[in-house]
Amino acid sequence: LTLRTEPHYVLGIDIGGTKLAVGIVSPEGRLVSEVRTPTLVREGPDRVIRQLLDLCDGALVQSGLLRSQVVAAGVGCGGPLDPITGVVMEPPNLPGWVDVPLVARLSDRLQIPVSLDNDANAAALGEHRFGAGRGIANMIYLTISTGVGGGVITDGRLYQGENGNAGEIGHMGVVLGGRTCGCGGQGCLEAYASGTSIAGRVREAIAGGRTSMMPELAGSLEQITAETVLAALRAGDALAREIWEETLDLLGMGVANVISIFNPRRVVLGGGITNFGDLLFPPLRERALRRVMAPLAAVVDIVPAELGSTVGILGAAAVALAAREASELVNVVYK
Amino acid sequence: LTLRTEPHYVLGIDIGGTKLAVGIVSPEGRLVSEVRTPTLVREGPDRVIRQLLDLCDGALVQSGLLRSQVVAAGVGCGGPLDPITGVVMEPPNLPGWVDVPLVARLSDRLQIPVSLDNDANAAALGEHRFGAGRGIANMIYLTISTGVGGGVITDGRLYQGENGNAGEIGHMGVVLGGRTCGCGGQGCLEAYASGTSIAGRVREAIAGGRTSMMPELAGSLEQITAETVLAALRAGDALAREIWEETLDLLGMGVANVISIFNPRRVVLGGGITNFGDLLFPPLRERALRRVMAPLAAVVDIVPAELGSTVGILGAAAVALAAREASELVNVVYK
Repeated sequence: LTLRTEPHYVLGIDIGGTKLAVGIVSPEGRLVSEVRTPTLVREGPDRVIRQLLDLCDGALVQSGLLRSQVVAAGVGCGGPLDPITGVVMEPPNLPGWVDVPLVARLSDRLQIPVSLDNDANAAALGEHRFGAGRGIANMIYLTISTGVGGGVITDGRLYQGENGNAGEIGHMGVVLGGRTCGCGGQGCLEAYASGTSIAGRVREAIAGGRTSMMPELAGSLEQITAETVLAALRAGDALAREIWEETLDLLGMGVANVISIFNPRRVVLGGGITNFGDLLFPPLRERALRRVMAPLAAVVDIVPAELGSTVGILGAAAVALAAREASELVNVVYK
Repeated sequence: LTLRTEPHYVLGIDIGGTKLAVGIVSPEGRLVSEVRTPTLVREGPDRVIRQLLDLCDGALVQSGLLRSQVVAAGVGCGGPLDPITGVVMEPPNLPGWVDVPLVARLSDRLQIPVSLDNDANAAALGEHRFGAGRGIANMIYLTISTGVGGGVITDGRLYQGENGNAGEIGHMGVVLGGRTCGCGGQGCLEAYASGTSIAGRVREAIAGGRTSMMPELAGSLEQITAETVLAALRAGDALAREIWEETLDLLGMGVANVISIFNPRRVVLGGGITNFGDLLFPPLRERALRRVMAPLAAVVDIVPAELGSTVGILGAAAVALAAREASELVNVVYK
């Protein structure tokens, strides 16, 4: 057994509706250990919190570090939640969680400071500190996955807003009276551009009489996913092309809107839909940048995220590191 | 002649395409003196800058203050411009102005520090310091006038973005492939909700065969303005109602979008269209707030601006005061 002796490691705790992941991360973003398990979501928050504490123990043992070398923990979790009080309010992906004081529960047991933010904000902090946004003061992070989420870095720090709910870019309205979104609103960007919505729009078109190779590719109409759309697009399917073009148009408008509003240096795109690669980035750049005014277009680039599947743990670790720095800054100012 | 002896007054310089206004303002927002003149815009920037310097002299004489009591000047001007270098780039409302080093030109002559920002940002700073946003940390200002402009206050300060162009809320896309905007884009909020666009949409509908009392109210089709629409709305005109409802829907989506993205405490609406009063605010609140998620809706209100016709000068004065405070903060930190 080799004991690593550097101090100041943090725990990154990534809470998803289907899996939990915990890792120990160095301040430079090195993932020292990593453990995962399926979320026992039907057994409720108490059971899931016990799972998390077991994972923390497992990650510590696997790391070979002393408990005293792990100085803080960060948690990324589906919102809505309150990052200031550390309470998880009622996330759609964690049924049965209502006003759970997660930070209090975890810090009681772990005996270190625990910080919480929603998963998109955590990912934004992770990409900003360790990934595609390193050294960038003004950055927008957008994840396009089963949903569409966002996080906003202004002047080098996460912008939280009045009560910690800023950056809901996925719920920007882009079509008046458009498709109903999971949030209850109509015409949100998420209702068109998420993987779920892309597949849903294809299924609706086929159910409405359009022909396509996609049901055969996927096995059935119901099994069509965004991956099916990508495969069909590469094979020249006309419906896949049409749905994808509309997706690019709306994503282009959405990305242009955040550029017009925030005047960022960089837009970082993550999530499964970025697997569309060159079918996504060049046409999206073209559509977004032609919409924004010249001085804004001149300073911004639109790039893929870099952290891949580690973004959950590294993002949660970045939440912990940002909170540590903020508290140290307060100490310096008031000393 | 009474000499006022308090120090630290500032000049507020408001540059418009049709009129120039200069005032002397106390740190508490009292307008001590105010002078105005039509902009000799066709005679070019040199002549307009001489007009401005004459107005500054006039405002000083009228104020009864000593020159030494006026310690800084702020300028609000149509963009695009660079608030950092103080250069006015090429505003559509000031033809012939190309890369004019306005701050250098004015500070050379006035011999006090001069700060510049675009008129919407200046108005946001003015409403934040002296008007409807007093004491609010996170505020969005939206002016709905001949154009639609915006300014964003985060954590009590104007959010500038990477190169001073943040807050272009009027150029948020709300209709894919929609009406062409003055910026060259399509479907911008400004292309529907500005006074010019509201009147334009009415004229297009009537030219397309719709009947309405508005041409008679205004004198002719060409003379229809947003004020005509307001009068026709009050008189029960069906086309006015239809166009206004669509305007409310799109404005509601636009305001909801900035709420979802910024999680502000307050949205302040200014500009001539706020004269629609109760025909604007209650239905706009309803439309905007039903679109945003509950934790965001819970903390935000949507209110009219308070500064009225003084917003140009008071906003420019607020630009000067914010710049003074920022430089004092820097001095404190580095001392």
